[in-house]
Amino acid sequence: MATLCRPAIAVPENVITMQQTLDLARETHADHPQRELVLRLIRNTGVETRHLVQPIEETLRHPGFEARNRLYEAEAKNRVPEVVRQALAHAEVEPAEIDMIVYVSCTGFMMPSLTAWLINTMGFRAETRQLPIAQLGCAAGGAAINRAHDFCTAYPDANVLIVSCEFCSLCYQPTDIGVGSLLSNGLFGDAISSAVVRGRGGTGMRLERNGSHLVPGTEDWISYAVRETGFHFLLDKRVPGTMEMLAPVLQGLVDRHGWTVPAMDFFIVHAGGPRILDDLCHYLDLPQEMFRFSRATLTERGNIASSVVFDALARLFDDGGVADFGQGLIAGFGPGITAETALGRWVGTRAAEEAGTGLAELSLVSGPG
Amino acid sequence: MATLCRPAIAVPENVITMQQTLDLARETHADHPQRELVLRLIRNTGVETRHLVQPIEETLRHPGFEARNRLYEAEAKNRVPEVVRQALAHAEVEPAEIDMIVYVSCTGFMMPSLTAWLINTMGFRAETRQLPIAQLGCAAGGAAINRAHDFCTAYPDANVLIVSCEFCSLCYQPTDIGVGSLLSNGLFGDAISSAVVRGRGGTGMRLERNGSHLVPGTEDWISYAVRETGFHFLLDKRVPGTMEMLAPVLQGLVDRHGWTVPAMDFFIVHAGGPRILDDLCHYLDLPQEMFRFSRATLTERGNIASSVVFDALARLFDDGGVADFGQGLIAGFGPGITAETALGRWVGTRAAEEAGTGLAELSLVSGPG
Repeated sequence: MATLCRPAIAVPENVITMQQTLDLARETHADHPQRELVLRLIRNTGVETRHLVQPIEETLRHPGFEARNRLYEAEAKNRVPEVVRQALAHAEVEPAEIDMIVYVSCTGFMMPSLTAWLINTMGFRAETRQLPIAQLGCAAGGAAINRAHDFCTAYPDANVLIVSCEFCSLCYQPTDIGVGSLLSNGLFGDAISSAVVRGRGGTGMRLERNGSHLVPGTEDWISYAVRETGFHFLLDKRVPGTMEMLAPVLQGLVDRHGWTVPAMDFFIVHAGGPRILDDLCHYLDLPQEMFRFSRATLTERGNIASSVVFDALARLFDDGGVADFGQGLIAGFGPGITAETALGRWVGTRAAEEAGTGLAELSLVSGPG
Repeated sequence: MATLCRPAIAVPENVITMQQTLDLARETHADHPQRELVLRLIRNTGVETRHLVQPIEETLRHPGFEARNRLYEAEAKNRVPEVVRQALAHAEVEPAEIDMIVYVSCTGFMMPSLTAWLINTMGFRAETRQLPIAQLGCAAGGAAINRAHDFCTAYPDANVLIVSCEFCSLCYQPTDIGVGSLLSNGLFGDAISSAVVRGRGGTGMRLERNGSHLVPGTEDWISYAVRETGFHFLLDKRVPGTMEMLAPVLQGLVDRHGWTVPAMDFFIVHAGGPRILDDLCHYLDLPQEMFRFSRATLTERGNIASSVVFDALARLFDDGGVADFGQGLIAGFGPGITAETALGRWVGTRAAEEAGTGLAELSLVSGPG
């Protein structure tokens, strides 16, 4: 059984507060006819702080797509290795034991992908499979976990390294002044995350089932316009209401696995915005407390795209996790509109030791907790 | 066991011959100091005809990255569905029976990927997994086969649809006048291909093993520079010599599988250029005949990026395939420099029928052919 181990996270050193964001929006768009609406929407996000790869003055300039993309590459090479080293240490796995690297990022484009550079510089084997995914946006965190899970199901001795590198601030477009764009300018943040999925051993979330779902007819609700100036993020105003459609999908996956939502112990979901979390509470009839880790990520770091689920999961680890064999769900949401969902059980140190003796497998079959 | 079924291929209606390519290069670069070298290199490719999504006059204009990418999307939506329908028909699989779509393309960028549009418009289930890969370039054909194989190994009842859509002509950059760029202008062509990997049943290549390999220190040999004008393809002059490094890798994979290169029945490899095929003959001590399908793709369609392996494989099918249980290899080569290799056995109609009775599995174990 594949186990998703403790993620490592890093955020850049430049911080912008909500107050600074509001002040900037007020100044920059003094004559915008919907300025008050934008300010209210930004306030409602609840995003208190965000971290950016550049100081805010630099972030607000657009030096061109080429310069932006060069900066993406330089910052990724500068910041990713330490996060990867931490994730490997958390999983007690050496670079040479990794069989596939899943690299997810929608905020810069490189070919070859950063996977090649990581293999060349960090001691991974030349045989390491490379799976770079650029087009699943915020859902890619969930997709990375699920494809890693599938790979370990195919090859039970395999280990997969996941790397998510999202510099959303490098997609800031000064000329986009629609309400959705101005809201996005106050919502997204930068972060790097990494985690190992171990085919055997390890502590964390033992992955048992995964599923994908595309909400029909919503292709243009979250999308990129590709222009000379780079990727322009387009956010439809219907997106915050998406959980009405996706909550039943999560519920259905849980049901098919023979579990029930009220009996579950943890939920780690993509906190794209506050309404996603509020609506999941509503439609799944769960207390706000159940989404506290995703909420904390949103409040302290903003929407950090495919890294949200890893940041929120790291907070669950920091909090001590849940009881052994506790049932949980991870879900990434993104363009499509696509949900990538994983179900699994918490396996702490004691459970992992029992697994070594075969006891845990028995427990899993009889369904404890 | 996963079976790669007969691929479907389509090429656009606009044709450019080698003579036209040479004439154009001669006119456009009349004063280029290395014009004669470029003309000789283009002649040496052996590419007689290529197909383009636009007439040559349009292809030579650069209307901007945004317009190019819009054209990519429109042409993909216009041309992909029919190829997908053919691939599904070849595999005798309905859209609702597909569990994952692997979409590979390095010549346009969309988010959401075309996978979302295909699911919404062609009757695929909302639960279909989406795996869009944009950053593996020409190696992505092999990678798509290998990830589909892995998925069917994890879920033996699954079916995976592979779609490769490569409009290389939309990456033509009139301002790039280095020798590598001018050679590329005479080498690459456009094509769409699709194939199904069936977890159970089907005829074609039964996938048994796959492997990936990154040649150390070659990241900048094949790459994209990402600029305001789009993707600029950079080709290092050392690339044609890559088989000296990769032939032993293919050999090694065959050895680990308990096979020997001289005893193998078919080779379908990415025909990036003529030297790749010549060198594989040399280093693997094989006759040119063994690479005739890849050579035919190169001659008639040029380097069609991730679609090469599917076009060459379709030619093997057209030719009647090889004897049942014949051993074969498929390899994609691309940026990294990365090789994605698959090993498998030919399973024709008779072998597939025996498989239904369990006879073929016995044959596989005893290693016939």
